[in-house]
Amino acid sequence: MMEEIVKLQHHVVMLQQQISPENSNPPPGKEQQAAGVGILLQIMMLVLSFVLGHVLRRHKVYYLPEASASLLIGLIVGGLANISNTESSIRTWFNFHEEFFFLFLLPPIIFQSGFSLAPKPFFSNFGAIVTFAIVGTFTASVVTGVLVYLGGLTFLMYRLPFVECLMFGALISATDPVTVLSIFQEFGTDMNLYALVFGESVLNDAMAISLYRTMASVQSHDSSGKNFFMVVIRFLETFVGSLSSGVGVGFISALLFKYAGLDVENLQNLECCLFVLFPYFSYMLAEGLGLSGIVSILFTGMVMKHYTFSNLSENSQRFVAAFFHLISSLAETFVFIYMGFDIAMEKHSWSHVGFIFFSILFIVIARAANVFGCAYLVNLVRPANRQIPVKHQKALWYSGLRGAMAFALALQSVHDLPEGHGQTIFTATTAIVVLTVLLIGGSTGTMLEALQVVGDANDGPLGESFDGNTGYIAPSYDEGTSSGSRLKMRLKEFHKSTASFTALDRNYLTPFFTTQNGDVEEEFDELVPNSRGGRGFRGRG
Amino acid sequence: MMEEIVKLQHHVVMLQQQISPENSNPPPGKEQQAAGVGILLQIMMLVLSFVLGHVLRRHKVYYLPEASASLLIGLIVGGLANISNTESSIRTWFNFHEEFFFLFLLPPIIFQSGFSLAPKPFFSNFGAIVTFAIVGTFTASVVTGVLVYLGGLTFLMYRLPFVECLMFGALISATDPVTVLSIFQEFGTDMNLYALVFGESVLNDAMAISLYRTMASVQSHDSSGKNFFMVVIRFLETFVGSLSSGVGVGFISALLFKYAGLDVENLQNLECCLFVLFPYFSYMLAEGLGLSGIVSILFTGMVMKHYTFSNLSENSQRFVAAFFHLISSLAETFVFIYMGFDIAMEKHSWSHVGFIFFSILFIVIARAANVFGCAYLVNLVRPANRQIPVKHQKALWYSGLRGAMAFALALQSVHDLPEGHGQTIFTATTAIVVLTVLLIGGSTGTMLEALQVVGDANDGPLGESFDGNTGYIAPSYDEGTSSGSRLKMRLKEFHKSTASFTALDRNYLTPFFTTQNGDVEEEFDELVPNSRGGRGFRGRG
Repeated sequence: MMEEIVKLQHHVVMLQQQISPENSNPPPGKEQQAAGVGILLQIMMLVLSFVLGHVLRRHKVYYLPEASASLLIGLIVGGLANISNTESSIRTWFNFHEEFFFLFLLPPIIFQSGFSLAPKPFFSNFGAIVTFAIVGTFTASVVTGVLVYLGGLTFLMYRLPFVECLMFGALISATDPVTVLSIFQEFGTDMNLYALVFGESVLNDAMAISLYRTMASVQSHDSSGKNFFMVVIRFLETFVGSLSSGVGVGFISALLFKYAGLDVENLQNLECCLFVLFPYFSYMLAEGLGLSGIVSILFTGMVMKHYTFSNLSENSQRFVAAFFHLISSLAETFVFIYMGFDIAMEKHSWSHVGFIFFSILFIVIARAANVFGCAYLVNLVRPANRQIPVKHQKALWYSGLRGAMAFALALQSVHDLPEGHGQTIFTATTAIVVLTVLLIGGSTGTMLEALQVVGDANDGPLGESFDGNTGYIAPSYDEGTSSGSRLKMRLKEFHKSTASFTALDRNYLTPFFTTQNGDVEEEFDELVPNSRGGRGFRGRG
Repeated sequence: MMEEIVKLQHHVVMLQQQISPENSNPPPGKEQQAAGVGILLQIMMLVLSFVLGHVLRRHKVYYLPEASASLLIGLIVGGLANISNTESSIRTWFNFHEEFFFLFLLPPIIFQSGFSLAPKPFFSNFGAIVTFAIVGTFTASVVTGVLVYLGGLTFLMYRLPFVECLMFGALISATDPVTVLSIFQEFGTDMNLYALVFGESVLNDAMAISLYRTMASVQSHDSSGKNFFMVVIRFLETFVGSLSSGVGVGFISALLFKYAGLDVENLQNLECCLFVLFPYFSYMLAEGLGLSGIVSILFTGMVMKHYTFSNLSENSQRFVAAFFHLISSLAETFVFIYMGFDIAMEKHSWSHVGFIFFSILFIVIARAANVFGCAYLVNLVRPANRQIPVKHQKALWYSGLRGAMAFALALQSVHDLPEGHGQTIFTATTAIVVLTVLLIGGSTGTMLEALQVVGDANDGPLGESFDGNTGYIAPSYDEGTSSGSRLKMRLKEFHKSTASFTALDRNYLTPFFTTQNGDVEEEFDELVPNSRGGRGFRGRG
């Protein structure tokens, strides 16, 4: 694609030469040199981030987590580059390119999220997580959108059309998992709270991007999309289609590795090459079909970890776990640097400070509606000993910092929306991202201590109840059937279906897709260094 | 950079809209979908190549090595895409972009070459390898250039200016290591022959690109560069500068890992992240300074393997060895597919068939001048039991297939040279690449058998003499000082310096840069699964 740029730039240069003929071609290798300088700076910032993050962690400075440090490094270097007169050819290498983000940086991060998921706490909280991620994100998007629209109507803030307000609501509802979770890991918190925060922030990215795209297509085809019903159908199509294609690719990979017989000593490289290609295949398949690559790769990650992974040779298992961890760490850190740099370089329209102020207020309200509303629903169905306590709800509410996903979607909205509108949304999102990453990221530790949810997974009373009872979902739906309301019944049925999924998995899926039978799952968990103990989900150190 | 394309394309579209205002913007997500389809096809071809390569190897079909298979897959799919009316937005994802090749595909391949180098056979043949790579490539470039120029003068072929002939000579002298070496590994050949072929083809890439760039800068600044002396100085500057920066970065990494204390259990990811960033840092540093990234990363690879690697924890050692192997396999296979696809898609000027025919003849002559000439020089200085036998010379001469480096440089020459000239060079290079990869790649096995150089490293008489005597360089220069000619003396001095380098390494460098003292090198070699036995250099399986 660089070539494409070069060709287009030549084209532009030739057009410019018709005006000023003294302009000459750049000497050969000049562009490559600029690329070299640009990438060199990026690598240096990456190294600096890793080293700084390590030093900060070692000295237990929790006020500046790694993601915040990376963002600050990007901001500072970007600010310096902005003051100095950097050549525009070098600058090109630093602009945040949404397509680069979506096609190359995001897939490894999301895959690793799915891949490093410790399945037990995740599945035991599956109902709650799905409620928060789907119902909750939808609620938050609509609440934010409506409030921003009302704010515009009442002249409190810059006025945007309703569809654009909903687009803003959708993109700003994508919370970022990286920073908060790394702090949760440092402090060691309740396993269930951790699973909730983790599952919600991962799945809600997928939800937010699907919502955003749906709204964007409504916005661009004003004629066809006005029908609300069609919008919901299209959204469900995207979501279910992506989920199926992701799960399908995962199952195919499991069968391939089960029967190909690649788990012998000297084929390790071939085995790893193929394994590494599958997630990306899943992502691109979904994108190519016009679905959501993120949803697809997330579920491919979960399926591949659960089934395909155990069909690998032991060496390859160790390798691919470390490989995806490495790649996603690099991508995560790079995203924050890249974002910081671009924020410092990009043109912002600060004329609408009111918009920023009120949108921060509104997203706080919308997140409260999401978390406390969904927690109410979840608690309706859970037995007394499994209720989500209020302090966990507060922690979840507080953990909603906005990161790269919101930023990338906002940057895309600059292209999707009319001139001033996109710019306003972009500036507001930028401000929200920087504020939440620095403030929430820096104070999560204090918050966790204040809410008294600090402590190792196995120490707290909830941790115990979880750890001592692996199949605790089964009793929960059995004993609760006597209760009244219809909503409760529905929710319980859903609960029941997740429980029966566990049985399905153990009796049919695991024996079919892997070389082991269902009983040895515990043993298999222990094989993977990554999924053990407090660093279980996505340990960075 | 995608963003840049999009912006420029918008710019172009806006200009076009001034002419035809009915043209409308593409719907959002459309470009991403095209990218998805493009990348999806590429991944499918990659998977196909790996699987096909594996099947061919298992059934011992040596007439179609993996690289040829990848090239054919690319050619076929490219041909199909050419016949069908693929959308140009998808097509964009398949055009061979030299910058993408040079910045992202080439670095891992070259680094892995340096990193997987078994140091003993390489250093014991260091003098010969450097002679072949530097003197030989220079000879081959000049011979080809002069012959092509004379061919033009005598109306045998399309006439090019002298500097452009030399550029063609330089780019076509870059031989490709991948295919031939993978076959050498299958058959198991003499360790010294293997080291010669490997060392020459890796170093000569660096030499050819330096020569090409030097000539290109002469071509673009006609006024300043005519001075032959200045050209040589500039070339040496580039080469020595790149070598120093590569070695320097390698040493810095060794010291960092020696003293940072990252080799503890839970810092493995940090350790690997930093280790993985260094090679790329070296490449970009050299490119940013206007030097040759390839030369730099090659030497960084050698230094990092020799010193930095042993400062890593054992787990990280295993991981990074597998990591670089994986990344370079992916890049290599992708390069051949990508090249095949582009060859099928690109516009060629087949009007100059004579040029193609004669340039093939000339490169055969030039390679003979390179190999037999340099072998004569090397044999002058070597003792009788260490002479390079004629059959090895013939094997070396035969192994000169041209690959991605020549192709990428030729593609670049289309931009560097006037319209018809670059196109002619590009078409000729394409034809040479396809012919040599398919013909030489397919017949290397037969050739090795015909020349009777098949057999395991330790079986042949040369293998024995090498294996039984690790310090054989020392005796060779001691006994030879009585002989006459001045050239011989010079060469012996050089020989001596490489021997004293071994001593320097053992006594000073290894203790300074690593945590071990010089004596345990043997033990260290055994730690690395990759550098053992016949698959020592760059085993693919």
